[in-house]
Amino acid sequence: MKILLHAGALRRVEPALRSLGLALELYVVDAEGGISLDGVAVERAQVRPEVVWASLDTYSGNQVGLFFQVALTEPSVKWVQTFNAGLDSPVFKGIVDKGIRLSNSSAQAVAMAEYVMGQVLGAWYPHDAYRAAQAAREWRRVGFRELSQSHWLIIGYGNIGREVAQRAKAFGATVTGVRRSSTSDAFADEMAKLADVPRLLPHADVVVLSCALNDETRDLVGSAFLERMKPKSLLVNVGRGGLIDEAALIAALDRGTPGIAVLDVFREEPLPASSPLWLHPQVRVTAHTSAAGSGTVARGDKTFLDNLAIYARGGKLINEIDESFF
Amino acid sequence: MKILLHAGALRRVEPALRSLGLALELYVVDAEGGISLDGVAVERAQVRPEVVWASLDTYSGNQVGLFFQVALTEPSVKWVQTFNAGLDSPVFKGIVDKGIRLSNSSAQAVAMAEYVMGQVLGAWYPHDAYRAAQAAREWRRVGFRELSQSHWLIIGYGNIGREVAQRAKAFGATVTGVRRSSTSDAFADEMAKLADVPRLLPHADVVVLSCALNDETRDLVGSAFLERMKPKSLLVNVGRGGLIDEAALIAALDRGTPGIAVLDVFREEPLPASSPLWLHPQVRVTAHTSAAGSGTVARGDKTFLDNLAIYARGGKLINEIDESFF
Repeated sequence: MKILLHAGALRRVEPALRSLGLALELYVVDAEGGISLDGVAVERAQVRPEVVWASLDTYSGNQVGLFFQVALTEPSVKWVQTFNAGLDSPVFKGIVDKGIRLSNSSAQAVAMAEYVMGQVLGAWYPHDAYRAAQAAREWRRVGFRELSQSHWLIIGYGNIGREVAQRAKAFGATVTGVRRSSTSDAFADEMAKLADVPRLLPHADVVVLSCALNDETRDLVGSAFLERMKPKSLLVNVGRGGLIDEAALIAALDRGTPGIAVLDVFREEPLPASSPLWLHPQVRVTAHTSAAGSGTVARGDKTFLDNLAIYARGGKLINEIDESFF
Repeated sequence: MKILLHAGALRRVEPALRSLGLALELYVVDAEGGISLDGVAVERAQVRPEVVWASLDTYSGNQVGLFFQVALTEPSVKWVQTFNAGLDSPVFKGIVDKGIRLSNSSAQAVAMAEYVMGQVLGAWYPHDAYRAAQAAREWRRVGFRELSQSHWLIIGYGNIGREVAQRAKAFGATVTGVRRSSTSDAFADEMAKLADVPRLLPHADVVVLSCALNDETRDLVGSAFLERMKPKSLLVNVGRGGLIDEAALIAALDRGTPGIAVLDVFREEPLPASSPLWLHPQVRVTAHTSAAGSGTVARGDKTFLDNLAIYARGGKLINEIDESFF
């Protein structure tokens, strides 16, 4: 089986990969974009893999374009495992339209949920007052608002939204999940549809955007949405920048609702230096970094290895995407 | 039934109290320490309650001494409900020794667990790096260590320790609880004894002290304990100041292990201005404030009301303390 993968990924998984007992030929892309087949340099035109594994390394190293170009042009390709969770880039529909199997990743979900909790507790918790009292050697009791009394609206209750819900629930929060399916879930007090969101917004202390970007969700957070939010509420976007009308958000923040916006994704990335979001006092900007937890790479490697074993025996892949997704 | 309670508490619970259908005579202590019986001022010497409810108000208002003095001197007293969780003050043994029933409170447990999580995430999470990058309008990915990969050692697995465990577990952490009973619990991967702590310390990323202060635990955290801690680990004390030898802790922090100490309780409170803990860069000082969550008072009120109904029908109280505790 011929696999296209990144040299960084290979270094981590080689023993586990070899132990699967498959006859493998590995096209390895190095950090400079050079390609070798079992140690011998090959031209791009000679690359004819059956499997393409676009691991996190390909994003960090900026070789992801090569991986997807191979997937879209080489008829040898039968399966693409991507590190992406969100599949709004047209590349993914292109892959599925060619009849290539595609599986995405939930390796980032745990990290993203920790990011959300860390940011919400960071915004909610009186860290600054504690620091100030300590610096002044002042013995002063500072009360805090409990998450136990908060209501969370998690828009997009897939792998990521569910991991967030699990943690918020352990704090005793009330959780409403929003997804297409109305099947209930252990970590949500209720499950709702996108159409219910306007009715739910006035009750939500924390609104998390962890949904896909598509025709239904583009510009979801515009002035009508923002006007229904609860005073002092928190808006967290770990989905896609296109979910939010950024100008409407700034106007709403200036009016005081939501109280804080935690934004990890933006309509244009990197966020341009000219964006007023950077220095807005109620905005927390991070650089599409919510997946950058210390366990993400290992979970991504495990997803690929598990899926490769399934692929080899002809089973349905973990996180396999079908046409109806798009 | 004659009850001694604080005016602040009465304002909150009066309708619920009246709805219990008991014949009540209420000795009410106001914010200035004045006492009235059903609206008429009475002298301290006339105060002969059956029930003493030392709610959080009595601590904030500094009238707690009066409540305990009544409990220890008036033979009319049959039951004391205290807001305290820790019962190391000799007052409590004195109450039980007189044959008075005593129940303590777990109303602070949820708040204290939120405090622990807020402080651990605050220390662990790259908030400062995020802020610096944002202030510089710099699009920079900042990785973070996941709690999912951490090991927690919770010394004192009562109501408070268990609430901490529940939250750490939801993050995927590995949790070891330490208590006298070896009964397993859903939120702990393993349960251990105090004697096991030296063996467990080298593996713990987060050590939480949520145990009672008694002859077994006094000065528990001395140089031998500290030398076995894991490099870069976090020590959180929400128990009692007497659990830690503060000089040994400072010496250990100066050597780099633990990495950070979060201290909410101290050998002397208020922490004296001369204490080197105030300005130590690896110490987070808060003013015995971990219980000061927004839901604590309401949970304390509910505990009293629930217990009063139980007391009236002669049942075993929630959190009732017996002699064997001391």
